[in-house]
Amino acid sequence: MVQRRNPYAPRAADFLSNISNFNIIESTLREGEQFANAFFDTKTKIAIAKALDAFGVEYIELTSPVASEQSRADCEAICKLGLKAKILTHIRCHMDDARIAVETGVDGVDVVIGTSSFLREFSHGKDMAYITKTAIEVIEFVKSKNIEVRFSSEDSFRSDLVDLLSIYQTVDKIGVNRVGIADTVGCANPRQVYDLVRTLRGVVGCDIEVHLHNDTGMAIANAYTALEAGATHIDTSVLGIGERVGITPLGGLVACLYAANPEYVKSKYNLPMLREIENLVAEAVEVNVPFMNPITGYCAFTHKAGIHAKAILNNPSTYEILKPEDFGLTRYVSIGHRLTGWNAVKSRVEQLGLTLTDEEVKDATAKIKELADVRTQSMDDVDSLLRIYHSGIQSGELATEGRRRLTDQAGDP
Amino acid sequence: MVQRRNPYAPRAADFLSNISNFNIIESTLREGEQFANAFFDTKTKIAIAKALDAFGVEYIELTSPVASEQSRADCEAICKLGLKAKILTHIRCHMDDARIAVETGVDGVDVVIGTSSFLREFSHGKDMAYITKTAIEVIEFVKSKNIEVRFSSEDSFRSDLVDLLSIYQTVDKIGVNRVGIADTVGCANPRQVYDLVRTLRGVVGCDIEVHLHNDTGMAIANAYTALEAGATHIDTSVLGIGERVGITPLGGLVACLYAANPEYVKSKYNLPMLREIENLVAEAVEVNVPFMNPITGYCAFTHKAGIHAKAILNNPSTYEILKPEDFGLTRYVSIGHRLTGWNAVKSRVEQLGLTLTDEEVKDATAKIKELADVRTQSMDDVDSLLRIYHSGIQSGELATEGRRRLTDQAGDP
Repeated sequence: MVQRRNPYAPRAADFLSNISNFNIIESTLREGEQFANAFFDTKTKIAIAKALDAFGVEYIELTSPVASEQSRADCEAICKLGLKAKILTHIRCHMDDARIAVETGVDGVDVVIGTSSFLREFSHGKDMAYITKTAIEVIEFVKSKNIEVRFSSEDSFRSDLVDLLSIYQTVDKIGVNRVGIADTVGCANPRQVYDLVRTLRGVVGCDIEVHLHNDTGMAIANAYTALEAGATHIDTSVLGIGERVGITPLGGLVACLYAANPEYVKSKYNLPMLREIENLVAEAVEVNVPFMNPITGYCAFTHKAGIHAKAILNNPSTYEILKPEDFGLTRYVSIGHRLTGWNAVKSRVEQLGLTLTDEEVKDATAKIKELADVRTQSMDDVDSLLRIYHSGIQSGELATEGRRRLTDQAGDP
Repeated sequence: MVQRRNPYAPRAADFLSNISNFNIIESTLREGEQFANAFFDTKTKIAIAKALDAFGVEYIELTSPVASEQSRADCEAICKLGLKAKILTHIRCHMDDARIAVETGVDGVDVVIGTSSFLREFSHGKDMAYITKTAIEVIEFVKSKNIEVRFSSEDSFRSDLVDLLSIYQTVDKIGVNRVGIADTVGCANPRQVYDLVRTLRGVVGCDIEVHLHNDTGMAIANAYTALEAGATHIDTSVLGIGERVGITPLGGLVACLYAANPEYVKSKYNLPMLREIENLVAEAVEVNVPFMNPITGYCAFTHKAGIHAKAILNNPSTYEILKPEDFGLTRYVSIGHRLTGWNAVKSRVEQLGLTLTDEEVKDATAKIKELADVRTQSMDDVDSLLRIYHSGIQSGELATEGRRRLTDQAGDP
C-alpha cells in the first residue's frame, strides 16, 4: 500500500527497519526533570506517570533514587501504582547507585557512563578498562535481582567507535537487555545515526535504545532514522523537555511514526490523549505548547493559501498526512485574507446555504482580498460580506454596478 | 579537523555534500505570510526584509504580486530598497502570473506547479504534458527578461518519480537556473530526501532547491540531508512560520549547519542578529519564541544535572556544540535543585570568593538538595546558603553540629 503511494517509502528489502515495531521509553520524569523550569512534586509526578500509562507508552523512566531523598520516595511510590508501563530508573554506572536502585521496586535499571574523550577527560576521569569492569559488575548485580538492565554510553557520537563497539559487545555477551546510544550534546545528524545504529545492530543481539538531544532541531528525525537502522527503543519526553532544549518529543515522534504507519501507531497509543498530556506537562513546567508543535500546535491543521484551501476542501489528503480526527482535533480553512482563493470562498458560500454563480463567487473573492489587504477579515466578517453580496444579487441591486455599493457597505469597520 | 574529532562526520569522499556551500532562500515574506496569524503591513514587510538582509541571507522570497494589489505594491517597494539579498517572487506556473511578476523589479521568479496525482486530481486538474508545455513557456518568457527562474514541483514526494525527473530534465535543458523539490505536506523523512536529491543531482546540471514542511518535525534534518545529497539552496522562514506548522526554520537550519562547520556559517551570517530577527517576526505574528527553539530558546544554554554542570564548568565543549557567545548569548549553570552536584556548587563557591574544603562543599550540597526537594532554590537562595555556611565555618560554629543550625536558618522561606 505505502509503496504504491510513494516510491520513496521504506522498501520491503529494508529488513532492518523497526518503524512498525518499536517501544517508547518515556523520560519526562527523568530527562524532563533536568529541564530548567522543572520541579515536579510527588502529586505531579504521579499524575504524569498515570497519564503516560493511559496513553500507552511501554516504559516510564524516573530520576535516580540517589539524586535526593524525595526522588527515592517518589520512585518507590510510582512503582507501587501498578501501571501497565514498565518502570525504569536511571543511574550512574556505580555499585552504590545500583544497590539503591534495585531496592525501589523498579522493573529495570538504565545504567549510563560517559565514554567520549571529552567526558573521560573533563567529567569522570575514568579509562575504558575501568568503565568495562564497572559495567560488568553493575550489570551482573542488577541481573541477579531479576530485573531488566540497560547499559548506555554517554556522548556516543564523540566516542571512539572501536571503544564503543567493544564495550557493547562485552555487555551483550553477559546478557544485558538493551544497549543505549546517546547523543548527549545534540551533535548527530540522521545519516550518522543511521550508520552507528546499523553498525551496532551487526555487533550485538540485544535491544538497542537511542537517546537524542535536540540542540540542532534534528532529534525527531534522528529517532526515526535510528528505527530504520534497527533500533528498538526510543527515549522521549513530553514536549521534549530536558537539559538545554531537551530531547525527542513524544508528540513529534508519534507524528512521524503515524505518518509512516497510521494503523500501527493508532493500535498502540491513545492518540486523542496527546494534547491533554502535553497541556498537563506544559502547565507543570510553566511553558506554552509551541505554536509550531507537530499535531497539537494551534495551527497544525489550519489551511490558508487559496490553492491549499481549494484542494483540502476537495480531499484532505492533498495537504494533510495526519488526520486531525485521529487525534481528537479538527481542521480549519481560513479564507479572510489576501491569499484567499475563489474555490475556498465557494465552499464557504455553500456552507452558508447561499447560491452564487462561479463568476459571482470570483467577484466576491476579489472584494475579500481588497478588504484583507487592509486588515485580516474574521470568519464573521467574511460571512457578513457574503450574505450582503448574496442578498444584493437576489434583489437585483448588485447586477449592475453593485460592487461599488458592496464595497461601501462591507468596508465599514 | 572534523574527522579527527568524530568518526561519523562527513567523509572527504562525500563529494556531493554542500553542507559548506549553500544558499538560504528566506521565505518569511512568502511562505510565512501563509501562517495562520500572519498579516504583514508594508512597514513590517520592509523591516523584516532589511533585517534578513543585514543577517546575510542570500535570497528573500515574496508573495506573488498577483495575490492582491497590496502584495504587488509591496513587492515593488522591497525591490527598490537596494538590498544585497536577491529578491524573488513566487508564482503559479501560468503566463498571466509571470507577466505581472517580471514587471515588479525582482531578481528572479520562483515558479511552482503541483505534480502529484493528489494535486493533479484535486487541485489544478492538469496532466503532465500540459504542465511541461506551460513550464517551458513560462521559463523561456522569464529568461527573456534576463532574470533568474526556478521551476519547482509541488508535493514532490508523492509525485511519480519518472514524471518528476522527466520534467526537471526538460527544464534544465532549456536553461532554468534552479529546480525545486517541495515536501508540501511534510511527509518526507531524511533518507527519502537524500535519495531523491541524489537521484536528481545525477539528472540535472542546474542548482537544486528544497522546500520542506515540518508537519512531523523533520524539516531541519531533511534540509541538512538534502545538502548532503547535493542540494544547493534551502528555503527557510523565521521561526519556521508558514502553512500549518510551517517549514524549515532559519534558526534551526543555522544551528545544524553551524554545528557542522562553525567557521563557514560565522563567515556568511551575522549570527548575533538571529535573536533580534526572531523577536521581530514573533511580535509581528503574535507568537512566543518556543521555549525549546534551537539557539534562542530561553534554556538552550542552561545546564542543570550535576554531572552536566560539573563537566561544563571544566570545559564547555563537553555538553555544548554551539558556542553561545557566537550568537551573542550566555550560558547559565543552574544549581539550586535536587539534581545538583557538588562540583557545580564548588564552582559557585569559588565565584563568590568563598573558601571551603571539598568535604564542606559536599556537606553544603547535601543541604541544597534537602531544601530543593521541597521547592526549587533560586541563585539568591543558594548564594545565601553558601554565605551562611561559609561564615559558620569561619566562626567555628559549624565545625561540630552546625548543619542542623544551618538547616534552621536557610530553611526560612
